[in-house]
Amino acid sequence: MGQHSFVDVMLLQITGQMPSVEMRTMLDAILVSISDHGLMPSVLAARMTLLGAPEALQGAVAAGLLGAGNRYLGTSQLTAEMLQRQIAGRTDWSDEAIATQAQAVVDECTAEKKIVSGLGHPIHTDGDPRTVRLFEIARETGFYGPHCRLLEAVQKLMCERRGKYIPLNAAGAVGAVVSDMGFKPFMARAFPLIARVPGLVAHLAEEFERPIAHQAWELIMRESGGVGASGTTPTTPGA
Amino acid sequence: MGQHSFVDVMLLQITGQMPSVEMRTMLDAILVSISDHGLMPSVLAARMTLLGAPEALQGAVAAGLLGAGNRYLGTSQLTAEMLQRQIAGRTDWSDEAIATQAQAVVDECTAEKKIVSGLGHPIHTDGDPRTVRLFEIARETGFYGPHCRLLEAVQKLMCERRGKYIPLNAAGAVGAVVSDMGFKPFMARAFPLIARVPGLVAHLAEEFERPIAHQAWELIMRESGGVGASGTTPTTPGA
Amino acid sequence: MGQHSFVDVMLLQITGQMPSVEMRTMLDAILVSISDHGLMPSVLAARMTLLGAPEALQGAVAAGLLGAGNRYLGTSQLTAEMLQRQIAGRTDWSDEAIATQAQAVVDECTAEKKIVSGLGHPIHTDGDPRTVRLFEIARETGFYGPHCRLLEAVQKLMCERRGKYIPLNAAGAVGAVVSDMGFKPFMARAFPLIARVPGLVAHLAEEFERPIAHQAWELIMRESGGVGASGTTPTTPGA
Amino acid sequence: MGQHSFVDVMLLQITGQMPSVEMRTMLDAILVSISDHGLMPSVLAARMTLLGAPEALQGAVAAGLLGAGNRYLGTSQLTAEMLQRQIAGRTDWSDEAIATQAQAVVDECTAEKKIVSGLGHPIHTDGDPRTVRLFEIARETGFYGPHCRLLEAVQKLMCERRGKYIPLNAAGAVGAVVSDMGFKPFMARAFPLIARVPGLVAHLAEEFERPIAHQAWELIMRESGGVGASGTTPTTPGA
Repeated sequence: MGQHSFVDVMLLQITGQMPSVEMRTMLDAILVSISDHGLMPSVLAARMTLLGAPEALQGAVAAGLLGAGNRYLGTSQLTAEMLQRQIAGRTDWSDEAIATQAQAVVDECTAEKKIVSGLGHPIHTDGDPRTVRLFEIARETGFYGPHCRLLEAVQKLMCERRGKYIPLNAAGAVGAVVSDMGFKPFMARAFPLIARVPGLVAHLAEEFERPIAHQAWELIMRESGGVGASGTTPTTPGA
Repeated sequence: MGQHSFVDVMLLQITGQMPSVEMRTMLDAILVSISDHGLMPSVLAARMTLLGAPEALQGAVAAGLLGAGNRYLGTSQLTAEMLQRQIAGRTDWSDEAIATQAQAVVDECTAEKKIVSGLGHPIHTDGDPRTVRLFEIARETGFYGPHCRLLEAVQKLMCERRGKYIPLNAAGAVGAVVSDMGFKPFMARAFPLIARVPGLVAHLAEEFERPIAHQAWELIMRESGGVGASGTTPTTPGA
Repeated sequence: MGQHSFVDVMLLQITGQMPSVEMRTMLDAILVSISDHGLMPSVLAARMTLLGAPEALQGAVAAGLLGAGNRYLGTSQLTAEMLQRQIAGRTDWSDEAIATQAQAVVDECTAEKKIVSGLGHPIHTDGDPRTVRLFEIARETGFYGPHCRLLEAVQKLMCERRGKYIPLNAAGAVGAVVSDMGFKPFMARAFPLIARVPGLVAHLAEEFERPIAHQAWELIMRESGGVGASGTTPTTPGA
Repeated sequence: MGQHSFVDVMLLQITGQMPSVEMRTMLDAILVSISDHGLMPSVLAARMTLLGAPEALQGAVAAGLLGAGNRYLGTSQLTAEMLQRQIAGRTDWSDEAIATQAQAVVDECTAEKKIVSGLGHPIHTDGDPRTVRLFEIARETGFYGPHCRLLEAVQKLMCERRGKYIPLNAAGAVGAVVSDMGFKPFMARAFPLIARVPGLVAHLAEEFERPIAHQAWELIMRESGGVGASGTTPTTPGA
């Protein structure tokens, strides 16, 4: 306490030893890259929960975490699994070897009709700036290793095949960097959960001061006609 | 199985013995009275959760339950506590005795500046039809006892004091009937949780078939400017 | 209220119409068959949660539901998916046609190295009595249809192949019956969630009266040496 | 990203501005002081949840958070409320004024028969080392202000009254320091939720690698006779 940061102690808990400066810097960057978020669906779930149960902050935070499932966190874990499956047990990390493995990854996805994890972005079609920054810091801290290189080789191959630029998204980059830090794919799913809690808390603190959940609910009711699954009009909470 | 209903077995689990027909009829009526609900905030929380974590139905149902806190369920439990505290240990249940106790309840609430639980309704100002029906069934099944009578005496007194009709709401009626069935106040909070799960499941089944969560989220984003606690514009889920 | 049971209204919410007597009888039997449970891991999760947050009953029930995932509920849904995939679009339900489809199911599982869902039981190796009773009631109510028949044909084939009796378990039977009632596989996962809540409530009511969570925790601490992930000895809650 | 730590961004999200070095150092110390934990009841809840739902890491983390309620987190928030109620609107922070207010706090607790929040510890009867360290860092960073001083004055008074040493516990110290950092009592409840997630993740990572939940469950079953609320012996999960 006073000597080590929260992220140091986090890594101590997870790995069993106090991290190097590089390790802490890299994890700080990962957590920062995925912690910044606005009025996401899971934030709405948390705020709606607080509306009915203001006595239990932990319940509202838990509700916000429960939406952090496959659709949000799946990409990082799937990318890590895809990369670690290829890299495991290999020792030749020459450019040629990496290119061959990238070919194998793409062929496997094509054969199994699966999408290649970690590629594409609905807005940042020219490149996700968070990916660029994560890989820069990975190079500075020594965690730009074979998993990151393999993912970039996969991307290059996919761009050639499709004849257009396909960006690496930040979720995929997290999956690659976490793998090069020595973590199992599981942790690519776990770090975003850690990163998400401060944002949920910030939203809930705001909900106490300047509530929006009740108006958001009324807005949805008005637009939807307020008829739910049971075909009935809703009643006022608590009445 | 095949001989006893789900509600019979529910009462067996909770009380340790198979219920009488009257007991089961009364609980069925209570559960039905509180199970019917539309697009409530907790339903939105459940649907928003499914949007991000479609692999974990249990998580979406849990998120829906987490909003069933003091603001929704408090009234039934508080009414049960208020009534049971007065009735406990008494044997004189004459109309006079009940009237005296009603006076004591109202005086206590006035002295402590607390609202009287179970009274008032934002829409049904002339009387909540669910309360009327619950008390009818309570009379038919033999569960209209001192707690129900005390609550009605409290209501009568409050109407006189205020010089206008104040209805008994359904949440209060549930607190009174559950007390006359012999349950502790805790169960006035627990039965609504049981009653709520089928409605949540129905909404989530609907969300799989005809999703509305994503549009509801976009609607809120559009209206709110999409700026959340962190002052940043939100990004697309999973990207 | 007073005319229809909780299970009637449950089916109204889920299907949009009031059920037939047979439908309600069958669902009552399904819910009863899966509602009876003892001190399961998810019950322990609920009791441990109540220990730290006695103010939020909804949180303890939610914690108990969160453990109702693939390992518990997967079998019913997987069985329903396996059966519905085979049955969909077919009209020939002769014994020969069903036998051919059973062959297809088993061949597919063998080819994909997957286990056949719904078969086997660690204790009831001579037959799960709940399965027998569920199929009896399904016959009485008219819901013993092609999905149930296909599952029994699959079982017969597997017994022949393995040269020994392999029972149909109750989770598998639920998957088959729910399919013959016209529900999607999703509901084979949803009904057990509904069935589980009263049992959780009963355990939590017991935990308030005769708590066991604290002793259970101390027991585990004593046996495990109390050293967790962080390598530290735990401290007393709240201190 | 790369320039600011996770705790910097956390404070940006919560306060709306990038923190000073002192602010970040103080919050790091607070999070570290409450993040270290062993095999707590909430950790068992998380592990038991993962046992049944290994597909949904977010559900197991949420289950672990749901036990972080009044019994664990109440002390910090109650201490913050007690102190902020006294300090609010005052400008005279001389030793005499603080002593007078301490007297008022103790008198109020005595009158309302409430315990004084933040005092006492079951093990560290001679003083909680985390409290000492937190106040040291608060002095170094400039956050040892009237709330911390008031809590120490309250402690001094209580020691005199009882004629024995009563320690300030870490939960109370967190409530005081958070108040002197300018946060509302709500945040004294929220920071421990943030601090708890990495520990839960570390335990769940361990549960995947070296599971203990199943044996812990069997141990409890063996010792308790395995008879739960419904009076029935439990069955094997998933069967």
